[in-house]
Amino acid sequence: MLENKNPSKTNISQLGEFGLIDHLTKNFEIHQNTTIKGIGDDAAVISSEGDNQIVVTTDLLIEGVHFDLSYMPLKHLGYKAVMVNLSDVYAMNATATQITVSIAVSNRFPVEALEELYAGIKTAVKMYNVDLIGGDTTSSTTGLIISITAIGNAKKETITYRDGAKENDLLVVTGDLGAAYLGLQVLEREKEVFKVNPNSQPDLDAYTYLIERQLKPEARKDIPKLLSELDVKPTAMIDISDGLSSEIIHICKQSNVGCNLYEDKIPLDPQVISACEEFQLDSTTVALSGGEDYELLFTISAEDFPKIKANPHLTVIGHITHEKEGTHLISRANTKIPLIARGWNAMQEDD
Amino acid sequence: MLENKNPSKTNISQLGEFGLIDHLTKNFEIHQNTTIKGIGDDAAVISSEGDNQIVVTTDLLIEGVHFDLSYMPLKHLGYKAVMVNLSDVYAMNATATQITVSIAVSNRFPVEALEELYAGIKTAVKMYNVDLIGGDTTSSTTGLIISITAIGNAKKETITYRDGAKENDLLVVTGDLGAAYLGLQVLEREKEVFKVNPNSQPDLDAYTYLIERQLKPEARKDIPKLLSELDVKPTAMIDISDGLSSEIIHICKQSNVGCNLYEDKIPLDPQVISACEEFQLDSTTVALSGGEDYELLFTISAEDFPKIKANPHLTVIGHITHEKEGTHLISRANTKIPLIARGWNAMQEDD
Repeated sequence: MLENKNPSKTNISQLGEFGLIDHLTKNFEIHQNTTIKGIGDDAAVISSEGDNQIVVTTDLLIEGVHFDLSYMPLKHLGYKAVMVNLSDVYAMNATATQITVSIAVSNRFPVEALEELYAGIKTAVKMYNVDLIGGDTTSSTTGLIISITAIGNAKKETITYRDGAKENDLLVVTGDLGAAYLGLQVLEREKEVFKVNPNSQPDLDAYTYLIERQLKPEARKDIPKLLSELDVKPTAMIDISDGLSSEIIHICKQSNVGCNLYEDKIPLDPQVISACEEFQLDSTTVALSGGEDYELLFTISAEDFPKIKANPHLTVIGHITHEKEGTHLISRANTKIPLIARGWNAMQEDD
Repeated sequence: MLENKNPSKTNISQLGEFGLIDHLTKNFEIHQNTTIKGIGDDAAVISSEGDNQIVVTTDLLIEGVHFDLSYMPLKHLGYKAVMVNLSDVYAMNATATQITVSIAVSNRFPVEALEELYAGIKTAVKMYNVDLIGGDTTSSTTGLIISITAIGNAKKETITYRDGAKENDLLVVTGDLGAAYLGLQVLEREKEVFKVNPNSQPDLDAYTYLIERQLKPEARKDIPKLLSELDVKPTAMIDISDGLSSEIIHICKQSNVGCNLYEDKIPLDPQVISACEEFQLDSTTVALSGGEDYELLFTISAEDFPKIKANPHLTVIGHITHEKEGTHLISRANTKIPLIARGWNAMQEDD
């Protein structure tokens, strides 16, 4: 599908590096008043608002490692690549304001394919109100590489790190868990079916939520705003796209505390439960280690509990303990199981 | 050389993604007082100094496109990758303060190879007084990919864009041109010799400057400082690592002006002249389009000429004309040749 065998497709070399950047980014508008200069100079220029501090985060997505174009449409990929980065900005309890996008592509991709990718990026920046302010476009020897840097800002006293969790704090997670991983299982299964019978028409109705969570995840832009409205300052916060288990351990290690996480409190969508039965997977393991849920995990002081308890976006899943008690899952059978960091790890997939 | 066949070498998967980042970045210190939080959270946090504006630039370097590890030692590559980005910060007439470094590597690279790469990055950040504040480490299906984002700042009135050149302004370039391109020619020739006779001992004494400009370029950190000391605010400024010719055209297009560039004024090192004779290359073409000279091109008001004329780092190579006069090279024989943008273009190399 992506082979540039169609002579009506435009080869990227026809535009050259500068022409390609201009072509792909010409319809992006600037909306943030902190963006002084976007694309078109040696560097972008931004200002900080008042005495706000600036947060910066970056992620690299590699074809064949982080995504598979056989079931990931390029438009969705562009959207998701932005989400991956914005999620880290929101995990600082900050507002995302700008991104840079660099891509490396082999000649296998016609300009029209990159237009699709940028259409997804454009939808994302519009929906999340961030400005595309720079980037780099180059050729690659194989495949597609996407490198995004996201910038945001927040008041100094609002920015939330990983190291502030205190004993007796509550452990809170946004949304529900495990769906993105199961969406990937469904898509990989369909890919195998398609290899055997390219004419099969998959019925994916039972998996729409799972597939959407995998192909078109949303970053939790609403959470910093919600926390501000609820007048809750988390004591620690982290993005859990690498897996809930490993990220709880990060917070505990950096805060020098322990935790008890309650298995029966973990929020699961009904599609997650039924797909786990179908794939014969343990739903708790999927929720703890599946990864790619662009949700946030945070800790709050117990006295803030009344402020959040009625909120449908937030679930209390455990509490912080003394460091020497360690990090544990309390199972439905009330047994205490040590948490292990088995998050999604792109480094180990290569083994 | 880079194959991980030696059992005493450490496979990257032994450390995992987080372990690898920690391992590679553990000895990096924070020196900038605008760095609030470096590596170790979802995002880095920086503050702006007074009412300074912040500049952001990013570049992607791909093995086989931007560098060839058969003659580029990894330590030099790490150093150069930082220079490529800092040069864009200095081209805004700003001070570089922070960088993020993301790498994707195949299992072909042992941890020890990445340590070499990071040793080069460390030398660069130390020499240029910038803080490494974040990044991403992942596996690649082939080769090495480096993505760096550089951040800097300057007073609003100091930041220099590409679009401010005015008629009668002088066109000034830093350093000398063409050496990096010739360094690459020398290295590629040696690579061919080595293929035929692996025991040959190359005598590269005549090319030391050229090779150094290719393998260990320096970004012009000194120039924003020098311009400030000389009390010169350029009207436009640009990094010329993509080639002098294409960058002059960028300034002229964005400033809506023309220019005359004088062939006999282009600064060339004696090694450039002799290597051009040896390789039967035209030194002007090499200086105009060779690229990878991490020098800066800027325009100044003619009345600032006395302030810069005695400076050995700066050469006046032409002047700005009315837009309708176009962009020309005035040759030694006093003929007027239209400038063409034949800069180094990673997009076209793939043709």
